[in-house]
Amino acid sequence: MDQYVLNHVHIMTTDPINRFQKDMYLVIRNGLIQEIGHTPLPDALKKDLPVINQKGKLLLPGLYNTHAHTPMSLLRGVSDDVPLKTWLGKEIWPREGLLDKRKVQAGTSLALAEMIKSGTVAFLDMYHLHMNEVFKLTMDAGMKAVLSRGMIGLGTKKEQHSKLNEACELAKYWNENGKGRVKGMLFPHAPYTCPPDFLEAVISQAHHHQLPLGTHLAETLEEVNDHKHQYGKSPLHHLHELGFFNKKAILTHVVHVTDEELDLLKDGMITVSHNPMSNAKLGSGTAPIPKMLEKGISVSLGTDSTASNNNLDMFQEMRTAALLQKGVNRNPDIVSTDQILEMGTLQGARSLGFAKHGLLQAGSPADFIMLDMSSLHLQPEDNLISHLIYSASGQDVTDVYVDGKQLMKDKELLTLDEEKIMYEANECFKDLESRFLNKRRKEDN
Amino acid sequence: MDQYVLNHVHIMTTDPINRFQKDMYLVIRNGLIQEIGHTPLPDALKKDLPVINQKGKLLLPGLYNTHAHTPMSLLRGVSDDVPLKTWLGKEIWPREGLLDKRKVQAGTSLALAEMIKSGTVAFLDMYHLHMNEVFKLTMDAGMKAVLSRGMIGLGTKKEQHSKLNEACELAKYWNENGKGRVKGMLFPHAPYTCPPDFLEAVISQAHHHQLPLGTHLAETLEEVNDHKHQYGKSPLHHLHELGFFNKKAILTHVVHVTDEELDLLKDGMITVSHNPMSNAKLGSGTAPIPKMLEKGISVSLGTDSTASNNNLDMFQEMRTAALLQKGVNRNPDIVSTDQILEMGTLQGARSLGFAKHGLLQAGSPADFIMLDMSSLHLQPEDNLISHLIYSASGQDVTDVYVDGKQLMKDKELLTLDEEKIMYEANECFKDLESRFLNKRRKEDN
Repeated sequence: MDQYVLNHVHIMTTDPINRFQKDMYLVIRNGLIQEIGHTPLPDALKKDLPVINQKGKLLLPGLYNTHAHTPMSLLRGVSDDVPLKTWLGKEIWPREGLLDKRKVQAGTSLALAEMIKSGTVAFLDMYHLHMNEVFKLTMDAGMKAVLSRGMIGLGTKKEQHSKLNEACELAKYWNENGKGRVKGMLFPHAPYTCPPDFLEAVISQAHHHQLPLGTHLAETLEEVNDHKHQYGKSPLHHLHELGFFNKKAILTHVVHVTDEELDLLKDGMITVSHNPMSNAKLGSGTAPIPKMLEKGISVSLGTDSTASNNNLDMFQEMRTAALLQKGVNRNPDIVSTDQILEMGTLQGARSLGFAKHGLLQAGSPADFIMLDMSSLHLQPEDNLISHLIYSASGQDVTDVYVDGKQLMKDKELLTLDEEKIMYEANECFKDLESRFLNKRRKEDN
Repeated sequence: MDQYVLNHVHIMTTDPINRFQKDMYLVIRNGLIQEIGHTPLPDALKKDLPVINQKGKLLLPGLYNTHAHTPMSLLRGVSDDVPLKTWLGKEIWPREGLLDKRKVQAGTSLALAEMIKSGTVAFLDMYHLHMNEVFKLTMDAGMKAVLSRGMIGLGTKKEQHSKLNEACELAKYWNENGKGRVKGMLFPHAPYTCPPDFLEAVISQAHHHQLPLGTHLAETLEEVNDHKHQYGKSPLHHLHELGFFNKKAILTHVVHVTDEELDLLKDGMITVSHNPMSNAKLGSGTAPIPKMLEKGISVSLGTDSTASNNNLDMFQEMRTAALLQKGVNRNPDIVSTDQILEMGTLQGARSLGFAKHGLLQAGSPADFIMLDMSSLHLQPEDNLISHLIYSASGQDVTDVYVDGKQLMKDKELLTLDEEKIMYEANECFKDLESRFLNKRRKEDN
């Protein structure tokens, strides 16, 4: 069904002036919102198109998760209460060394299903293994994404070259075959895992192939101090010198940066993915979001992987972003409820380079979600943006549409087999843990 | 049904050594857990008692919310992005002035229903109006609570006396008629709303009638500084001098306190209700929980009202408590996942004076909840405590029991009429808002 009308929905837009409109209809044609109007529905439309009544549901733009590592959903809950360095070195990397194609597929499928269930329509993903499987699964699931074959550049020149080559080839392949829905980018892991000459090569390839760049930056203070010790400059300054900020790029985390460093990012091409829950859980700190907003830097939200979050619910991410900034800065007005909604939707779309997305207006892609607002925790039925940001969760989402295609209907996934995905994730996890414990036992002896 | 067996449940206890036990049975008799054992169920029990199979659900102690103002659930979402003083003075108190008995009942019913739905079995409640309605509704709903007729002591001596008298009479009445399930306490609002001589009178009455005490303390820095300016000492020191800490008392918020002040609380009779989401949302700050734990002070968790939270989901409160402390202190180990679970259960029970509660063991009251752990965001099925604290929400709760009586079955409330409660809350809210806007319009003219 590529032409239809959704009737009797309440809509919430990202425009504070027309925030909430009651009892509306939306005409969807060829994946786009063709028209939005107040009911009653004109007779001509009634005759022409199938009409779907959605009485009472709240429709809003889908959510954009700008920092994920979907295959890592297999590692949810394996390690808590330790800092990033221990977490990566002792718990995550050793398990990742044991992931094969089937396990990457299982983790990715689990993540895609969880994202759709909780209202996410698009995501940024970076992973080191079998990344083309993530591409195929995302295409089949019907979501939007910007993907990258992640690169840790600590190996030999030959290994670096091979990774970069593969990353470029895959990104180009995805741009050609992703139907504009799934695109490619280059994402060197971080300045602390990618030496400067390798970063230079990556930047040069990104600019040559017109691929956006991304990297993890200034996640912990230790990482920034180590970098200064080794190179005599901060990782952000270093990236700036290397030309990383000369074209479109997204920086994830960005917790430990100075005011003066932020000035280097404010030309509009560089966006920040704020990851409050992951940064808090790993004890990394709280990013200076109000300063970024003051400087006009576009800030979106990302969950990071479920191994450090531990879910992919963007409603939780929006709420925590708001609460953390208000609490830490002891100022309840330092980030407004309006700004938080925009970070989860419109700014996410912008930072992933999806033009006209994150908006509910004629000519925009029909990417939106619907929520059942009739639950106890969303009463009284008023001040809905407050309920959305401070009380709702992904479990309130009932329907998800991308390019006009319905991916979830009344909480049932239409493009993915939920039961099969859970079974497969558990089988793969059991196998992974037994291999991991065996390996650890051998190393301990 | 006062005698039965729950069979085939997985249980999670507050004891880290026996955290998780698979495929168990529980024998419930006369409101107590009589026996917990590994399946198979002995034949004698099978013959004697009705057996309810709960294959695969996770059973854990119910959650304790140690800071609520249930009637205020009617005010969910009325004001965001402003500090405590403005929030109270401009938005909350003017609306509260318009609450009548019916509106208090409506707000309370909404809160009770939301609490049961999200796995809370007991709560502490303080409110200024129609508090006996809260008592009656709580008794009917089947929950446990410690209640108080709140007291703001800014009026005349006569008003003070009348409030204190009513508070004592109600507390005694609840202790006599609450069947040990609902009890009374005295809760002067805060040192900034209760002058010292009034506080002295309250303390004296509390000790005379053997009622526990509670108050809001050191929620904002402004409040602490104002108090020092007016009295030459901090509110905590002032309470100490007045004898507030001589017998059992609970302090809520406790954000702005020094190390030396905390030493005054460590004798075991004083407990702290930590309210991380409300403190963050109002920009009040982050309480020094690790220091309290270090000193052996019992810390439990409370949501505060939905007007500053904005829901009553204790899973969200546990998660935010963990994330905030780890993030703000830049130390992922500063509060452990184990400690957070204990704060939401066992420490809550202790601080409300419910002995033997918050435990899953023979002889404890049959107060527990069950969760469906088969959702996508709780996979893979392992490390369940991590999933509970970092990924679950109140919406994963399916069943709630208090004193062996089932209050919710498969997400359906058994003691409350959910639809009627939502209807009534909305009717009352509409009436309240129209009166409030009228009043504001008149004042503006």
